[in-house]
Formats: sequence, C-alpha cells, structure tokens
Amino acid sequence: MQIKDLGEFGLIERLNNMVTRGRRGPDNGAAHGFRLLVDTGDDTAAWAAAPATELFTTDTVVEGIHFTRETTPWQDLGWKSLASNISDIAAMGGLPLYALITLGLPPETQVADIEDLYRGMLEIGEEYGVVIIGGDMVGSPVAFITVALTGVHNGPPMLRTSSKVGDQVAVTGYVGSSGGGLKLMLEGLGATGKSAEYLRNAHRRPWPAVAQGQTLSMAGVLTAMDVSDGLADDLSKLCLASGVGARIFAEKVPMHPALREVFPDDCLDLALNGGEDYLLLFTAPEEVMREVIPALPDGAGVLGEICNEEPGQITLVNAHGQEAIVGRAGWDHFNQGSPK
Amino acid sequence: MQIKDLGEFGLIERLNNMVTRGRRGPDNGAAHGFRLLVDTGDDTAAWAAAPATELFTTDTVVEGIHFTRETTPWQDLGWKSLASNISDIAAMGGLPLYALITLGLPPETQVADIEDLYRGMLEIGEEYGVVIIGGDMVGSPVAFITVALTGVHNGPPMLRTSSKVGDQVAVTGYVGSSGGGLKLMLEGLGATGKSAEYLRNAHRRPWPAVAQGQTLSMAGVLTAMDVSDGLADDLSKLCLASGVGARIFAEKVPMHPALREVFPDDCLDLALNGGEDYLLLFTAPEEVMREVIPALPDGAGVLGEICNEEPGQITLVNAHGQEAIVGRAGWDHFNQGSPK
Repeated sequence: MQIKDLGEFGLIERLNNMVTRGRRGPDNGAAHGFRLLVDTGDDTAAWAAAPATELFTTDTVVEGIHFTRETTPWQDLGWKSLASNISDIAAMGGLPLYALITLGLPPETQVADIEDLYRGMLEIGEEYGVVIIGGDMVGSPVAFITVALTGVHNGPPMLRTSSKVGDQVAVTGYVGSSGGGLKLMLEGLGATGKSAEYLRNAHRRPWPAVAQGQTLSMAGVLTAMDVSDGLADDLSKLCLASGVGARIFAEKVPMHPALREVFPDDCLDLALNGGEDYLLLFTAPEEVMREVIPALPDGAGVLGEICNEEPGQITLVNAHGQEAIVGRAGWDHFNQGSPK
Repeated sequence: MQIKDLGEFGLIERLNNMVTRGRRGPDNGAAHGFRLLVDTGDDTAAWAAAPATELFTTDTVVEGIHFTRETTPWQDLGWKSLASNISDIAAMGGLPLYALITLGLPPETQVADIEDLYRGMLEIGEEYGVVIIGGDMVGSPVAFITVALTGVHNGPPMLRTSSKVGDQVAVTGYVGSSGGGLKLMLEGLGATGKSAEYLRNAHRRPWPAVAQGQTLSMAGVLTAMDVSDGLADDLSKLCLASGVGARIFAEKVPMHPALREVFPDDCLDLALNGGEDYLLLFTAPEEVMREVIPALPDGAGVLGEICNEEPGQITLVNAHGQEAIVGRAGWDHFNQGSPK
C-alpha cells in the first residue's frame, strides 16, 4: 500500500500508535526533573522543565544525497537518522530527550517502508532513551527526513571552541569502519566473513557515544565534537573553532583490525576521510587524558596534539616523520562529488 | 552568485553573521529564567532552563507543494515559515523562544535569495522574540525549509482535546483573508486598491496570535488550536480530538469587508476552507467567553457551539436554517490536488 492510498492522516495515526506503544527505553529526563506533558497530536508537544542545561540540534538526510535505498534499508535509515542527532547531543556531554520527526515523502512511498523507518527509530530510541513526541509530514518529490532533538546536561556542555595549544587529541574508538562498510557496498564487493560484516554493520548501525560523552564531561574535558564527516575534516573544524592547528600521527590513528584486513591499502584514507563513525573527538591536557581514558567504556586513542599553527590546519605525520596537510574543510554538500 | 560558488560553509558563515547581528527583539526566555549558553556553530545549541512548561514544534514547506516563488517572494517565505511555527506555540498559549532552521537547497540556488529568506525570518523573529540558534543545510533537488521551534509557558498549555458539549466556538480575527490573497495571485487577478492589497498582504505576512493565546490561556480558556489548514478542517480536527461535533452559523463567520468586496460569491468558501490565516480557534463556556473576548486585542467572533454529534462532524447552518456538513478531514498532503 502506498501513502496516497492510506492518506496522510491514516499514516500519521499508524506511526503515532507505533511511537506511543513502543516506549520502553530509559527516561533520561526523569533524573533531571523533566516530565512529558503533551504528547504527539496537538499543535505542539510540551514538557515540564527543571533547572538544567538544555541542548537542541537538528540533522537532515535527503535521498540520493545522503543515502540510497540500496546501501541503507529503511529500518537502518531510521536508526541512522536518529543516531546522527544523538551523536551531536553526546558531543556536548548530554543525554538525549525528546525528538520531532519530519518526513518529506513522495505519494507513492510504500507505507510498509515508513513503518520500517519508524521501527529503526524506535529501536535506537529505546537504547538511548529518545522519545518521539511529534513531527510533521509533507508531500515532496524527493524523500527527506529531518530530526530535531533536545537533550539535557547537568553542567557546562563541551564545546569546539575551547581547545588549547598543548592539548592532546583523542578519539573514543576506531575510525573509518563506517566508511569501509559503505565502500564495500558502493563498490559491490561481495566480501563475506566477519570483517566485512563488522564494517557493513558499522555503517548501518552506528552507536553514538552518549556514555562516553558523559564520562568525558564529568571528568573535566572541555573540548569535544562528534566524528560525522571524517576525522580529518572534523578535527579541522574543531581546530578552526578554537583558533589552533593540530598534528596527528598516522601510526596512532585507531583502526579496527577488520578495516586493515579488508582495505590494507585504503585503510588510513578511510580512517581520515570516511564519515559517519559517530565517535567523539576530544582534546585535553595530558594529565586529564591520563585520568579519563581508563574511565571510558572502551578507552580512547591519543593520536596527536594541538599546536600553534594556522587555525584549522591539520598536519599528518607518517612513520618516517614525513608531513602532509590534511583536512582543511568539511564535507561541502554543494560542491563535492560523492556524499559521505 | 549561486550556493555552489560560495560553498556551504561560506553561506553558513554569512547566515550566522546575519542571525547573530540581527537580534533586536524581546527576550521571551528572560522572564522565565531561561538563558542562551551555546549559540549557533557548535554540535548543538544550549540554554539554561528554569522550571516552566516548554513547548516544541516543527513545520516544513516544500517548493511546488506549499509555495511557489511566483506567489511567495523569498523574504515573505522566511516570514511565513517561522510564522506557521510561532502560530503553533501561540495555540498552546506560550511564547516562542529558540529556532533551528533546516534548509534543503539545490546547488544553483541564488545566495541573495537565501539571504532574503533569512531577512524575512529575522524580521518576524524580531517582532516575536524568536532567536535562531542553529540548524542544518543540505543539498536537495527540491528546495525545502524546516523550522523547529521551542516555546515556554507559565501554566498548563491549551489543548485540542478538552472541548466540552455546550462550549461556544470562537476565532480571534477574520478568516479567509490569506486564502483570498492567494486566490488573487493564483488566478492572476490584477485587482488593485486597498482591499486587494489587504488580502495579498494577509497571505504574504500573517501575524501569529501570540498575545491572543497568552490572554486566552491566562483567562482560563482550556481549548485552542491555530487556523492553518482552514476553519472548517481545523475545527473538525479539534472536535475529533475532543470527541465532539460542532454547529457553526454562516452569518457569524467573521470575514473582513475586503474579502466580501473582492470575492462576493466565494467569500464564505474562502472563510471556511482557505488556509494560513494563523488565527486562534478556541472553545469555552459562555461565561468564560464573556470575560475573555473583551480582553483580546481585536476581540473575537463567536460563530458556533460544540454539540454532541459524531466526533469531528461540523454542521454549517445558513441564514435560512438550512444545514450542511462541512470539514470532515484536514488538508491531506498526499491525496489532494492543490495546496493551501
């Protein structure tokens, strides 16, 4: 059945039923004194707020630009479209709370596909305590999904602007895995086995680093952002915002053994320039790093240092001490050839 | 200059400069103890919240579906895309606060057009105290604009679900003016004079009823929604949500003299079915109406009553006592021919 057969209101009712029935995750707001007052279905949603730092972010994916149905099934797309927003909340050190979902859809979209999309959203919502409390649905010649997400934090959020010369640069996991998974699918490489499966899964079901962000923020880390456009680009953005540069060491870039195995020649390129890993990139003085890294669920890899260079300039140093400039700008949605 | 020449980051920087320079409106959050902590440019925006009811809404317009460049210049489009969200906050009785703007744009979009769009947003933001604190920009084959807006309220928000049999039905201004203005433009009617100008202006620059919503809510009105899809459809939705029906009287539907003058034959149809007036539709017992209507800046017109009929059924009664069923469902973005 297509949306135009069921109608907008029929579809909204189905999705609202899924959303309100499917709530089983943690209630991140409760610990902060937040309480949902008006659920999906009125002019706006509403909640009772208590004194806290609130966070607010939005992220959009457009079919053909950010995803294709070939590499991302609808259910994974639902997971990922919330994941990228949750990751932004994680980057501030906060907990995600309430989400509004906007769907732009062609009338011939299959209802079952949109239910799958919502299933994926509900799955990740349950894991992370995100509650969908409304949204908007519009006809559109091209499918797009916009998520607006709020979050909450007990203290000052981690920023991009607070990096200092001398800070170490670290990342909370293996970079490049998602990019490797996408490359496998785009190039039609029928690679099987555990390593290929790990990479594809990293692309299809990323796990935003909410617990890591909380640990970092509580331990006094002031500077963080999430790795969504690629390590080199994102570090460049962080450095630009802080008015500093960075030197990173190729040998210290954390790569999963599966990435090295499947892409022995391209793994460093994927680690530096592959997007959608949704890890946290953070900087802190050495003494803070020494304390906080052992406290992280899966540790973190120190891969470089902040230095007094042209703002945003990232220098990659290889095993022989040779240097190259990488990452001077982020992914430009209008100027570049292939989406990440 | 097109966006693809300037690049995403260049455009974002320009818009961020406009946004942060252009803040001159009231600070609706201050009275509630809210304070902006992280402005546009980081992973998320952040504010310090105080105990209050927070509101959260989103609304999207897609080129070719909800607007065309012929009938809505970019600057008006900016005004309107915030207006529809502000109106949702008004319908709860709240004050609008913080907005995130998502733009989906073809690479050949003119930079000057997007600056005009933001000018319109800043103009209405200044009037209503809406602060743009971030967003997302993506490439898209079709232009779309999504606004996510938060708001704040001191008490319980007005809902759609609380209408009671015996309540009177009222609206805070003249309905159909925006629809009349759109009809003038769509049909290429070169009508001049004050009346035509009034109608076109009603379509291009609607004024959401924030002050009216506050007055209603403080006076004890429990049930309201905004008139965005048309009086008949919106009243039907409100009644459906409350499990009641309504009878409205054709002679009491408030229409501006300009609408009667320019469309003597179609004015009632436009008043019932034209959208985008962004007035407030509300219901309350007669004694509450008597108190609250004189307190509203421009009064309100009582046009009917809530009755014990099939939920969502709206009966129109004309001057001769003849009855007709109107408004059984809202505008369906997927099934119907022409957008409102």
